[in-house]
Amino acid sequence: MGEFDLIARFFKRPAQRQPLGVGDDCALLAPAPGTHLAVSTDMLVEGRHFLPGADPRRLGHKALAVNLSDLAACGARPLAFTLALALPEADEAWLAPFSEGLLALADAHGCELVGGDTTRGPLNICLTVFGEVPAGQALLRSGARAGDDLYVSGTLGDARLALQALRGEVTVPAPVLAAARERLDKPTPRIALGLALRGLATSAIDLSDGLLGDLGHVLHASGVGATVDADAVANLLAAGTAIAPDLRRAYTLAGGDDYELAFTAPPAAREAVRAAAAQADTRVTRIGQIEAAHGLHLVDAHGQPVPGHFASFDHFV
Amino acid sequence: MGEFDLIARFFKRPAQRQPLGVGDDCALLAPAPGTHLAVSTDMLVEGRHFLPGADPRRLGHKALAVNLSDLAACGARPLAFTLALALPEADEAWLAPFSEGLLALADAHGCELVGGDTTRGPLNICLTVFGEVPAGQALLRSGARAGDDLYVSGTLGDARLALQALRGEVTVPAPVLAAARERLDKPTPRIALGLALRGLATSAIDLSDGLLGDLGHVLHASGVGATVDADAVANLLAAGTAIAPDLRRAYTLAGGDDYELAFTAPPAAREAVRAAAAQADTRVTRIGQIEAAHGLHLVDAHGQPVPGHFASFDHFV
Repeated sequence: MGEFDLIARFFKRPAQRQPLGVGDDCALLAPAPGTHLAVSTDMLVEGRHFLPGADPRRLGHKALAVNLSDLAACGARPLAFTLALALPEADEAWLAPFSEGLLALADAHGCELVGGDTTRGPLNICLTVFGEVPAGQALLRSGARAGDDLYVSGTLGDARLALQALRGEVTVPAPVLAAARERLDKPTPRIALGLALRGLATSAIDLSDGLLGDLGHVLHASGVGATVDADAVANLLAAGTAIAPDLRRAYTLAGGDDYELAFTAPPAAREAVRAAAAQADTRVTRIGQIEAAHGLHLVDAHGQPVPGHFASFDHFV
Repeated sequence: MGEFDLIARFFKRPAQRQPLGVGDDCALLAPAPGTHLAVSTDMLVEGRHFLPGADPRRLGHKALAVNLSDLAACGARPLAFTLALALPEADEAWLAPFSEGLLALADAHGCELVGGDTTRGPLNICLTVFGEVPAGQALLRSGARAGDDLYVSGTLGDARLALQALRGEVTVPAPVLAAARERLDKPTPRIALGLALRGLATSAIDLSDGLLGDLGHVLHASGVGATVDADAVANLLAAGTAIAPDLRRAYTLAGGDDYELAFTAPPAAREAVRAAAAQADTRVTRIGQIEAAHGLHLVDAHGQPVPGHFASFDHFV
């Protein structure tokens, strides 16, 4: 199977909403008048972002999900994506389920595959996603203000729990692992929540490297600090009390691979945030507050400081 | 050096024309009203698209050049690009010249680096470029019509000559190799020509896999055939008669890595094509004609059929 056959067979579809899709030198996108185009790129490398031998269907889902999560964090509506794929060989038994997992999630979000590249090489999946957001309404990292509430969507830490269990570094009952593994393999991009938070959240970021590290980017970009209730955060582990308290804390604060949104909004908007969460059918939990003074302070449920260092994930450390 | 330091140090610049650049979940692009956004992705893998140990400055240039070449083939004006980079290690001695080569070409074309991703892994460079083209004016592969002239820009085959010489499969004098190697390492994206051909060329494609193979895509998409003057094409090897006639023919017809434009235009537009080439300061040569009958026919300078099979480059064959 040659490169062009491969594209035609597994990835080429008739262009739909976009003026021109797969099969010319460029794809053509037509963003609606008055919108900005939100763009994000993520590269997934075998052994680094997924385990060798990972289920290709789940990998297809995850490769797009982590990119859609960036659109969600900007409040952008998915429009289209490109796929660049390096493969050790053109293996139909891998490509068929990979493309199915990928395109099923794409279809669920009306996100059209418009172009790409395939080549032989160590397995590497590079997606670039495009979304639309009305000019001036994108959710940025730089908008958090002192006094804002700090929220997080969904649950945290279960992806890391699954990873540690798969690596044999922690032992959990099989049903707990199965549930956690769903979170690791099939993250849910919070697109509906991102859209509902337009004009409401003052800042937002998606959680890929762990809550504390990603929150640090928001604080830095906004020139503020934060107090975070570590006990409220620890309660967000779906696996719950099956896991020891110190691990719950570590996984939820600095686990990584969560693909939830952390966002800020003024206290006056609490009811509106609740309504947005309901509209998006997404759980949202208030976990702290933005402070004028720089620094990130962890407290327990009684407001007492929590000691300890929680390193976030960095692909080069 | 961590991932975020790396991005800040070598790739982050203040956002310029685009509303938001490197450093948030998404970059934001603002295409001009009435334009479409042309998008193209290319992935470069070590050992496949460049030799291990390749000069990083030249590699930075080439990685963007091959993507800009796709914009040129659509008649799009470069706007921005994203960079996803997998590196075995965060090596400053590699990153500094790589980013310099990349950003020098980006600056020359006003093409802004707006986002990206870095990770550890086997060396892999994935760029996605964005260009603007007035709605309805993009040059497509599907517009060639019977009777159209067939043109190619610049010179052909020298990149392949350099590759074969570097592999020790052909021996050429050092000055010839040095000149050919410039073509292999530092292709010139034909942006100015693409812009000048808007409204003039009926179809266009950039030559990355070899003239015959890429021309085949145009013929297929347009539902036509072509007659190509193989002698006129062989004369486009810049290394010229230093190279044996059979190799000149093979390299120019099916060499690959040329990053020139092949395009079609009606005979009535010959003077306008000449003027466009002059305006773009780019050599353009008429090499054949589009035919109603399918198939690609090679003839010599006397119109006699040229025998032989010239395989184009396919990354999976």
